Amino acid sequence: MGLRDEILEQPEAARRQLASDPAPIEALAERLRAESVDSVVIAARGSSDHAAIYAQYVFGVRHQLPVALAAPSITSIYGVEPEFRRALVIAISQSGASPDVVGVLAAARRQGAPTVAITNEPASALAGAAEFVIDLQAGSEQAVAATKTYTTSLLAIARLSAALADSTDRASGTEITTVPEHLAAALVASIEDETREAAAALAAADRCVILGRGFEYATAREWALKLKELARVFADPYSAADFEHGPLALIGPGVPVLAVAPSGLASAGLVELLERLGANGADLTVLSDDAATRAIGARSIGLPPGVPDWLRPIVSIVPAQLFAYHLTRARGLDPESPRNLSKVTRTR
Amino acid sequence: MGLRDEILEQPEAARRQLASDPAPIEALAERLRAESVDSVVIAARGSSDHAAIYAQYVFGVRHQLPVALAAPSITSIYGVEPEFRRALVIAISQSGASPDVVGVLAAARRQGAPTVAITNEPASALAGAAEFVIDLQAGSEQAVAATKTYTTSLLAIARLSAALADSTDRASGTEITTVPEHLAAALVASIEDETREAAAALAAADRCVILGRGFEYATAREWALKLKELARVFADPYSAADFEHGPLALIGPGVPVLAVAPSGLASAGLVELLERLGANGADLTVLSDDAATRAIGARSIGLPPGVPDWLRPIVSIVPAQLFAYHLTRARGLDPESPRNLSKVTRTR
Repeated sequence: MGLRDEILEQPEAARRQLASDPAPIEALAERLRAESVDSVVIAARGSSDHAAIYAQYVFGVRHQLPVALAAPSITSIYGVEPEFRRALVIAISQSGASPDVVGVLAAARRQGAPTVAITNEPASALAGAAEFVIDLQAGSEQAVAATKTYTTSLLAIARLSAALADSTDRASGTEITTVPEHLAAALVASIEDETREAAAALAAADRCVILGRGFEYATAREWALKLKELARVFADPYSAADFEHGPLALIGPGVPVLAVAPSGLASAGLVELLERLGANGADLTVLSDDAATRAIGARSIGLPPGVPDWLRPIVSIVPAQLFAYHLTRARGLDPESPRNLSKVTRTR
Repeated sequence: MGLRDEILEQPEAARRQLASDPAPIEALAERLRAESVDSVVIAARGSSDHAAIYAQYVFGVRHQLPVALAAPSITSIYGVEPEFRRALVIAISQSGASPDVVGVLAAARRQGAPTVAITNEPASALAGAAEFVIDLQAGSEQAVAATKTYTTSLLAIARLSAALADSTDRASGTEITTVPEHLAAALVASIEDETREAAAALAAADRCVILGRGFEYATAREWALKLKELARVFADPYSAADFEHGPLALIGPGVPVLAVAPSGLASAGLVELLERLGANGADLTVLSDDAATRAIGARSIGLPPGVPDWLRPIVSIVPAQLFAYHLTRARGLDPESPRNLSKVTRTR
């Protein structure tokens, strides 16, 4: 299985997870109903860190919970164990093998905090350290660049959110069942053609800026990481708000702008920024389900319509993955063998 | 006053803040002794976001508190107010003018959470919204790129930490009084000469990677922002741990590596990574107080010795600022007029 096969397998991977035993998520939701928490702490690295950013918006917008992204080195370097009082502690790692991420979870469990591991390896050290384990069910991921383990990590977070909202918001659970078909709709040939054309147009750029906002900030971050690790492009991801605090100076000839700008509450400010950048001559590539927003770009890539805001990041990264794959090839590189990287990174 | 003048003014700005009325910090520490908190939530953007990362390590390592970096758009875009139960809520903004940052603080105060504004404008909307205000006392900052407001923001966080640790750790307060002299030691002519030489050597690169770890991750982030906004260099900052999860693929000819690698607990892993990168032919510039670590680089920039780990980020950014200033000039750009930027950004 190559990278593109794994990208194409994502609807099936999501289906597998949705069909898997819901008991761990239900048990965790049960515990959180009995013993409510004041905040969420998440430990993660790499692509999983972007799943954590998605979780920050999901738990913030849907559950009013502040989310702290743990700095594992506080424990691994400075030997200090945070006090996880009244916090739900989540670790996200496809391999479950990073000792520093395991360390955060083990400390939280010793303290009696509710702990959950979101991992593709239910026999891993991370899973062993957690009270609750959500198995990604992504199947073996061979490519070095994470794709199906990323989208299934987001799906696991969305399922957890739906379980927590169960009594007040039964619609969420139903919305989640539509994720596999939305993923399939993001993988139609017409969208892949657009990613291939955009990649051909941008093959010469070795730098770019990627914009996203709100729920889609996670997509901007993950898209940038794929472009770095696969296509060796210096892709700099920003929320539209932070972008105006300095990095705006980077835009100029030879620095294209990519934007994930689907319809939804976050679109207004971002569309206005894109219009301004376009008027100033920036080379814009827009990823969106909205025709008027797409028209702002010199080129655009489609997204399936009708995906709820809070679930859309699971879907919108998919054409971005295909774009990264085709850009890598257009730049004469091998998407199966990123330079210097290995699949499992055991950071301490 | 130009950018370099403001960089040179930092020892004096720190002295001003240390001489200012300690009442707000003492009153806040008093409230937090009476009513302890389980976590810290920080709202910030731009350079202030890097002060927030410093705070994440300070409160994590010294007070075992998880720190959440607020996503202001959860309120400004999605209209949801997080519940700041048992959290200390800090907003950092030199201008105090960003409506979305003010929004987070105002919501927290309505809920009765202890709120503090760290700002250079004690008459700003942000200061008005906060229960406690720490005035940076940086003096008017004219340059678009933040320098003295950044280091005085870090100093304010360190003072707050020292006040919280008052009963158990009286040494902290004494250590803080040495910050102005350490800042002055980072501004000696021999160090500025090294920044000028390194800038001349790296003037042709339009991309680079910046590494830091632990407390100095904040420095890597802030250094990268200065290079982006002033010198228009795509500077990609990483903790040494995250770096191996993907971005390692970016290193190759024409992509120099800068590292902030002072002595201290975080240095071991970072030094090992730098040795590996050097052995593979990477072009390394090392910012350190340690002679052996400096020798790993093709060139290096000094730091004053003897600065405590937890205070060093206030000092180590200073030669990095000078490097950004000289690199900007070496690249034929004007450090006083970064492209596209204005001083105050009113993001919503």
